[in-house]
Amino acid sequence: MKYKKILLTENDIPRQWYNIQADMPNKPLPPLHPGTKQPIGPQDLAPLFPMELIKQEVSQERYIDIPEAVMDVYKIWRPTPLMRAYNFEKALGTPAKIYYKYEGVSPAGSHKPNTAVPQAYYNKMEGVRKLTTETGAGQWGTALSFACCQFGLELEVFMVKVSFDQKPYRKVIMNTFGAKVFSSPTDFTKAGQDALKKDPDTPGSLGLAISEAIERAVQDPDIKYSLGSVLNHVLMHQTIIGQECIKQMEIAGDFPDVVIAPLGGGSNFAGISFPFLRYNLKEGKNIRCVAVEPASCPKLTKGEFRYDSGDTACYTPLLPMYTLGHNFMPAAMHAGGLRYHGASVLCSQLLRDGLIEARAIQQLECFHAGVRFAQSEGIVAAPEANHAIAQVIREADQAKKEGKSKVILFNLCGHGFFDLKAYQDYFEGKMVDHELTQTDLKANLKELADYPAIPV
Amino acid sequence: MKYKKILLTENDIPRQWYNIQADMPNKPLPPLHPGTKQPIGPQDLAPLFPMELIKQEVSQERYIDIPEAVMDVYKIWRPTPLMRAYNFEKALGTPAKIYYKYEGVSPAGSHKPNTAVPQAYYNKMEGVRKLTTETGAGQWGTALSFACCQFGLELEVFMVKVSFDQKPYRKVIMNTFGAKVFSSPTDFTKAGQDALKKDPDTPGSLGLAISEAIERAVQDPDIKYSLGSVLNHVLMHQTIIGQECIKQMEIAGDFPDVVIAPLGGGSNFAGISFPFLRYNLKEGKNIRCVAVEPASCPKLTKGEFRYDSGDTACYTPLLPMYTLGHNFMPAAMHAGGLRYHGASVLCSQLLRDGLIEARAIQQLECFHAGVRFAQSEGIVAAPEANHAIAQVIREADQAKKEGKSKVILFNLCGHGFFDLKAYQDYFEGKMVDHELTQTDLKANLKELADYPAIPV
Repeated sequence: MKYKKILLTENDIPRQWYNIQADMPNKPLPPLHPGTKQPIGPQDLAPLFPMELIKQEVSQERYIDIPEAVMDVYKIWRPTPLMRAYNFEKALGTPAKIYYKYEGVSPAGSHKPNTAVPQAYYNKMEGVRKLTTETGAGQWGTALSFACCQFGLELEVFMVKVSFDQKPYRKVIMNTFGAKVFSSPTDFTKAGQDALKKDPDTPGSLGLAISEAIERAVQDPDIKYSLGSVLNHVLMHQTIIGQECIKQMEIAGDFPDVVIAPLGGGSNFAGISFPFLRYNLKEGKNIRCVAVEPASCPKLTKGEFRYDSGDTACYTPLLPMYTLGHNFMPAAMHAGGLRYHGASVLCSQLLRDGLIEARAIQQLECFHAGVRFAQSEGIVAAPEANHAIAQVIREADQAKKEGKSKVILFNLCGHGFFDLKAYQDYFEGKMVDHELTQTDLKANLKELADYPAIPV
Repeated sequence: MKYKKILLTENDIPRQWYNIQADMPNKPLPPLHPGTKQPIGPQDLAPLFPMELIKQEVSQERYIDIPEAVMDVYKIWRPTPLMRAYNFEKALGTPAKIYYKYEGVSPAGSHKPNTAVPQAYYNKMEGVRKLTTETGAGQWGTALSFACCQFGLELEVFMVKVSFDQKPYRKVIMNTFGAKVFSSPTDFTKAGQDALKKDPDTPGSLGLAISEAIERAVQDPDIKYSLGSVLNHVLMHQTIIGQECIKQMEIAGDFPDVVIAPLGGGSNFAGISFPFLRYNLKEGKNIRCVAVEPASCPKLTKGEFRYDSGDTACYTPLLPMYTLGHNFMPAAMHAGGLRYHGASVLCSQLLRDGLIEARAIQQLECFHAGVRFAQSEGIVAAPEANHAIAQVIREADQAKKEGKSKVILFNLCGHGFFDLKAYQDYFEGKMVDHELTQTDLKANLKELADYPAIPV
């Protein structure tokens, strides 16, 4: 047996992030101001983000240097291991070679700290005292809590009430890293007060929590806001994953035919796939990059490509993206990180241009896949990651059917230690698939009728 | 900054376990049959353990080869990283250099799979179909579930009722690895039935769960029993930790002055310290090896060195050990893995001979230490590991006071993702220290009056 784990040293951590905007054949359309519907400029974002992140958001530079202080924090868990899934291959009886990048070794247990750390750093450098953010299942809140703790920043996390009540331990881990965590809606923001007036027992939503965090940030010049996915700079920070993979695949003596990752906002998928897409865009390679979304929140496969808001309250700029409509309410399925109504601008443009692929998979298939993987490889994966694993099995079975080998690489973006309720529901037969009726979609998208159309 | 992580490759995983029995100046006294009070032979253990493990239990060989199939599974997570705690040193303002071995990267999140894997393997090789075991907090049950899954063995876990009810997710992760988990006491063992007859609402105990697991194993020649600590072969399997550390410290260009680990049964402490103790025993070095126990379960610092049972029901052989008496009921503190009444025979003999040190620390000091560590190094440690961290702070403060550097190494035996209730209690001021009155001890030890005395 060759190496199970392909490890790099700290000297091998990439020293730059890769900015795919430099290589895209069609540049993304500009974000629009939610009021004027005109393209926004840096000054429109300044109340929310530090200038360095705004610059990165629109940069056309191919590579951007990672600051030394960020590198020092990355070294706590990076480089992450690339693993050859020998046991899983054997269990599947496939001729395919399967590799996975394991991001669950980070302090937060997922890939999220890759962007939380630089975001905290740039805010600190520009004199910001406190950050605000929202969190659903808690992955992002945990990552940003860790990052703020490293740089001595205060943090307020608005955690969707239903998760706050159901996952008390996520709050505790954020507290351990020194963050304040509020159950959203709160009674001290206007957005929160309005929501509570409407329904005192509201379970909250990610869109509402975003509104609360933004409202809090714009009140005070010492406070800024931080987002864990969707935006260009967030996706770019994650490319450290794929860049490490390229070095590791070289050591393994293989190169992927297909790269697979789940897609919620897009940072996970972008992180592993964008550095490989560069080979397609610049060197004529043909690596398939497959984004996997839940069948109950299928923006890539059933949404429309058009301008939409990033949040329910329509505070954010309008973004050109594949969307189900910002009022789309996904079913209560277990991959909380994949329940977002839209896909990031960069991923949306790439899909529209036929440069990436998308698949939608139901959650029962995903958990079936996750249990098979855990029993083979010993890692209980997050529900989000199970979506990638389900697609890996489809690809591996295809290879078996065709009787030819191929190299599959996927992003095992986090462990499932905080998601065992989902596994419990699966074992107890309480988990169900959610079919989507076309009616649902039409109703939501109709609300976007007033938004500027995108030329075909 | 030099390397944060000192990594080894899979080629560097030690290929042998280190058996300290070969180097001890005073060999441990023999275990005695609980009925006859005479030294037991291999045949007495055969209903419980496979012959290879019984041989290892009494072996005087210095090194024992690790089977290839065990090595292959070790490669899923081994070698584990050795980390230099730069941030923690800075936060403490100490001239000491602090290193930690991080065993939390294993599939079970602790050091326990190091012995679970070979135990499952040897059982499989000798034709065993099913294992039984007990688990308290769930660390050991999780580790053995993973190991049995890797070798296609069935597993029944008897989980102490109070933990079964309080920690449902531990059960789910064991189910994910294919194990059956019962709330102990059950109604299908005699020990369980007796306990339920006495008190239908009993919360259960580790001692009782051991009795149930043993009873189940001896009924069927295809079923054997597995224990996660205390026994000589279990401690030996863990020495892979310290052996890796020796290679890693060499790479770092340092050598520890003091090695620290928590002690429950002893496998965690033995794992990191025994390979270093060899330098003391054979090469005249003077590395301090410090075992840390909770002040509420202080067998090493306040117990007596004498023969005692390993379980409450007195099914196990009598072992010569530091003990608080097998009926000692420790306070409900949060480091579940450290609530055992006795210390392993090997650790006890070494302490008696003055070759290791022991400290007892209260849990509030431990959690205070754990939070400081998490905020510096990004790892939320298990409550057991916090005991080591508290002692590290004491040593680091001492170095600061004396104005001289020293090298401290400790075993960060697991992460605390399943123990966040404890952190929550700590933050909410609900955690208290437990003082021990001398009366408690005397009463328990009086029950051992009939057991054979150990010559002074």
